[in-house]
Amino acid sequence: MSTELPRPIGFLSDFGYADEFVAVCHAVIRTVDHRIDVIDVTHGIEAGDLRRGAMALSAFAAYSPATVLLAVVDPGVGGDRRALALRAGDHNLVGPDNGLLMLAADRLGGVDEAVEISDSPVRLKPASNTFHGRDIFSPVAAHLAAGAAPSDVGEPLDASGLVRIDLPVAEISEEEIVCHVLISDHYGNLTLNLDGTVLEESFLGRVDGVRVRTAAGPARMRVCRTFAEAAEDEAVLYTDSSGSLAMAVNHGSAAERFGLVPDDEIKLAPMP
Amino acid sequence: MSTELPRPIGFLSDFGYADEFVAVCHAVIRTVDHRIDVIDVTHGIEAGDLRRGAMALSAFAAYSPATVLLAVVDPGVGGDRRALALRAGDHNLVGPDNGLLMLAADRLGGVDEAVEISDSPVRLKPASNTFHGRDIFSPVAAHLAAGAAPSDVGEPLDASGLVRIDLPVAEISEEEIVCHVLISDHYGNLTLNLDGTVLEESFLGRVDGVRVRTAAGPARMRVCRTFAEAAEDEAVLYTDSSGSLAMAVNHGSAAERFGLVPDDEIKLAPMP
Amino acid sequence: MSTELPRPIGFLSDFGYADEFVAVCHAVIRTVDHRIDVIDVTHGIEAGDLRRGAMALSAFAAYSPATVLLAVVDPGVGGDRRALALRAGDHNLVGPDNGLLMLAADRLGGVDEAVEISDSPVRLKPASNTFHGRDIFSPVAAHLAAGAAPSDVGEPLDASGLVRIDLPVAEISEEEIVCHVLISDHYGNLTLNLDGTVLEESFLGRVDGVRVRTAAGPARMRVCRTFAEAAEDEAVLYTDSSGSLAMAVNHGSAAERFGLVPDDEIKLAPMP
Repeated sequence: MSTELPRPIGFLSDFGYADEFVAVCHAVIRTVDHRIDVIDVTHGIEAGDLRRGAMALSAFAAYSPATVLLAVVDPGVGGDRRALALRAGDHNLVGPDNGLLMLAADRLGGVDEAVEISDSPVRLKPASNTFHGRDIFSPVAAHLAAGAAPSDVGEPLDASGLVRIDLPVAEISEEEIVCHVLISDHYGNLTLNLDGTVLEESFLGRVDGVRVRTAAGPARMRVCRTFAEAAEDEAVLYTDSSGSLAMAVNHGSAAERFGLVPDDEIKLAPMP
Repeated sequence: MSTELPRPIGFLSDFGYADEFVAVCHAVIRTVDHRIDVIDVTHGIEAGDLRRGAMALSAFAAYSPATVLLAVVDPGVGGDRRALALRAGDHNLVGPDNGLLMLAADRLGGVDEAVEISDSPVRLKPASNTFHGRDIFSPVAAHLAAGAAPSDVGEPLDASGLVRIDLPVAEISEEEIVCHVLISDHYGNLTLNLDGTVLEESFLGRVDGVRVRTAAGPARMRVCRTFAEAAEDEAVLYTDSSGSLAMAVNHGSAAERFGLVPDDEIKLAPMP
Repeated sequence: MSTELPRPIGFLSDFGYADEFVAVCHAVIRTVDHRIDVIDVTHGIEAGDLRRGAMALSAFAAYSPATVLLAVVDPGVGGDRRALALRAGDHNLVGPDNGLLMLAADRLGGVDEAVEISDSPVRLKPASNTFHGRDIFSPVAAHLAAGAAPSDVGEPLDASGLVRIDLPVAEISEEEIVCHVLISDHYGNLTLNLDGTVLEESFLGRVDGVRVRTAAGPARMRVCRTFAEAAEDEAVLYTDSSGSLAMAVNHGSAAERFGLVPDDEIKLAPMP
């Protein structure tokens, strides 16, 4: 055990809160070095929802002093998907090669080094076929936090071949914006695949009202600085705390009101 | 960073467990001083439920060594509600001026000092309009934990004008007690707005049975020392662990049995 | 407060995440010694589900450096069930005498010493009748973590009389295996009451297909090394990460597919 303080770990998974899975990973990490500070990013990602996991990890990375990110949403565990430890600047990221780590890696400046850790010398032995979070990813993340280099815990691989997640792409013209729901959060606020800068760069910043068409039918919304500007129960468009354009219902749930879920298409146009 | 150990923070919110919001606040706090010990009071308060948040914070304060309480149930974020840091004896409380902090402040001896922190010098800049938990409340709480005084983090304001939460008031006579449900907990136990001392000070302590009338109709209940004294599935009245009169079903849920939710009225009378 | 670092505590309960109950116990523990590291095993055990609690505690104990296990699933609180502190090798276990601690104690080598702690000198006074997690179990666990011996915190009792949990027992023959569901986890994977060694020791390891009969009717399943070997949506039998035989649906929920819950019987036979 090094005398230098280990780096903190940010830990995200889809393990949920009903079982002991998260705690077993905490236990494995503390067994490597009991001083490691683990910040639980969330373990409430819906089972197998890689994109939500990737986006939450990236949003956390923007604010976190944790320089080792451990993420396990891993429906392909035990199959032939690779297991990764990455370096992106001063940060390390550990998890399956299914795209989960890549939005955070991009935000942190891109992948500088990648190793395959399926046979890592620091993995638990024997490693199970179904719980690599416990047997491979947690011990690797802990050793990185404690000072190991990626080359100590895995075999080099070519970062250009890493699996990426496809996000839907918005289409922006002067007459219409076709965009999509990326996230439906705990409050029913909906993050769209539009950067908040779209308010300066499209008709959205210049109109009094926006015609919003979803599968639930058309609606009229204002663009507000915050949903507190809206009337009780009014639906509005605003720039959310991640800097994206979002839709909310003041004191209510936009997801429920409009029956919208991630990937649903939304069309925005100026009110006539 | 001071060489003295920072004070612990107790952190409550309605952020839920599905998103990364709680973790981002942890990250912001640790960025101010990585040694701060954060005890999560709960983040499962129903969205916008100020009263439940205020009561949980107060119940925690009764037992906690945490001397900085950070609470964010904030449906008015981005509007004109004020943002507060308070001092109550040795404690600090940080959160919106919507009543959330006041039950805990009362329990801790009352507000000795109040400052408005919307433009706090220690806030994140730019602060968003929708996530003051991250941008204002967390950094202010962290700086207070690390040794700052309220006057270092905000502008003085008059504590007499702070927003308070109204709790329903019970009416107690020798013939009848009209009371209300304050809390329905995880087990379906119901905390009433009656202090346990009502057992000494009313007919409740002197009768074999109590006639209980709710919207679901009348029922007969015994007053028990604990619900373990009750028969399987029997509903009883007892003094709960917070010192309040409560209603429970042994090995069951009183909330479900009687269809009761917070604010519902209950009438108690001696059995004839 | 000792100058030696206290031992970590692993803490499991059925308190849920909506109330402040877990945090109040954390607060009580930190009040005894603020340096105690508490690993939350899970607080999502269904209310009163002793067996799930006992199994999760035991699974955690297999990997944990925490040498004090604090477990509170306690439907008999306030009644005449005893309150326990146990020693099993280097470990201590604290909780009600209802079987909750015993699977973990068995895994840790069996109970070497047992004390009754209902009137422990370190309990909070007055202790409530309904929240022994806060008033008795947490302070006892904290004192054990900080270096106290069981005899410092309770009165000796005979370990042979401790309450145990009955698990259903599988019947294994060459023609048929009658087994049961023990755990339905967050993903809907089903842990059966069969050790993975049954693959070497019965027809299961020698057949191409298994006829599986449940109340939902018959099905055919393969035995796989991992569920990643299965086709999308295929149900398979495999050895899970705890070393038990289990049933899963690849990228789906076996619990939902077959309508199975803990204790349900399953019959396995070789395909003809």
